[in-house]
Amino acid sequence: MILIQSEQDILHTIRNRQSARAFSSEPVSHEAITRILEAGRHAPSGANQQPWHFVVITDPVPKREIRVACERVEARLHGFPPEPLGNWMKEHSITQEKAFLEDAPVLIAAFFDPKAPYAIPSVWLAIGFILLQTEKEGLSSLPYTPAGAELNAILSVPEALRLAAVLPIGKGIPGKPQPRKPLTAIASLHSFGTPFDRTSTP
Amino acid sequence: MILIQSEQDILHTIRNRQSARAFSSEPVSHEAITRILEAGRHAPSGANQQPWHFVVITDPVPKREIRVACERVEARLHGFPPEPLGNWMKEHSITQEKAFLEDAPVLIAAFFDPKAPYAIPSVWLAIGFILLQTEKEGLSSLPYTPAGAELNAILSVPEALRLAAVLPIGKGIPGKPQPRKPLTAIASLHSFGTPFDRTSTP
Repeated sequence: MILIQSEQDILHTIRNRQSARAFSSEPVSHEAITRILEAGRHAPSGANQQPWHFVVITDPVPKREIRVACERVEARLHGFPPEPLGNWMKEHSITQEKAFLEDAPVLIAAFFDPKAPYAIPSVWLAIGFILLQTEKEGLSSLPYTPAGAELNAILSVPEALRLAAVLPIGKGIPGKPQPRKPLTAIASLHSFGTPFDRTSTP
Repeated sequence: MILIQSEQDILHTIRNRQSARAFSSEPVSHEAITRILEAGRHAPSGANQQPWHFVVITDPVPKREIRVACERVEARLHGFPPEPLGNWMKEHSITQEKAFLEDAPVLIAAFFDPKAPYAIPSVWLAIGFILLQTEKEGLSSLPYTPAGAELNAILSVPEALRLAAVLPIGKGIPGKPQPRKPLTAIASLHSFGTPFDRTSTP
């Protein structure tokens, strides 16, 4: 089948993508940032409301402010982490220090309008597309979600919009690859518990 | 720059993807379904919990049951649709009839464990990856979210898992392309209201 090579291209990017928590300071071109944002702009959304707004930050001063605001909420989370998050953070040496918010040359703060229909699914579809385009650019990112971090004031974003994630973008220093559950554990055919198998006939 | 062609490949897929609400019954190969599921399987997730389960449905009987269950909740939604959803559905001739749930050769019901950390963002990242691989296969889909539809019993899915979306997959009959807000309206540089421009220096 002549299309296989091309069909597997996105899968290749998806399989190779790996979240990074450490970045070099090497700058990212404006063209790359533009293409990364374009990927988010073309995501589908509930009733086509496109309920997202992305703030791109490259200046050290707001990056520092964002880091301080995020580490403040991290201190609360790390005090009493819910499981399995707590264990996972310990295993991966993830602390409340978020140096990547200053080290990454670019941050994209993704906001959304919670009043739009299907707002959270929509903004996360856009973030997913952004993560893949970032990988395609030879760059790394992390869908970092500092729950409760108050970044609206720092970035002059109206209070009506809520933060979904802060995405550091840059040349990443890759972490440990994350193991995946096998396909048969995460997909069923017709009925939960009847594993979907690569080789079974649907 | 020699990488441009390859870099823009995912963007090309993202820009061309269009949700479909009508499908031909032409079957989808098992290999294509497998690659589509593989795309979801490799999405990032909170604490790498991979809190998703995908049920693939190709049989007419459960497809019919799913349609009936979804149209039941659609009847309620269409009775008192919130705006701007109501107007948008009217403009796009979207009614409570969901024939695509029977017409599409494949449905993927995406469930998630709401107790996992960042469960909703995680499952929507996986759904986004699935939508792109579907497009790459030359197929169409729709991130259809029948809020409150009770599909667990039909698909023997434990009550602990919740439905995120039902994705019809097949040769789609494309709808009207959805217009997008310009980049300058959905992206700012450093401060909300300072438009991010393709040509400005970050």
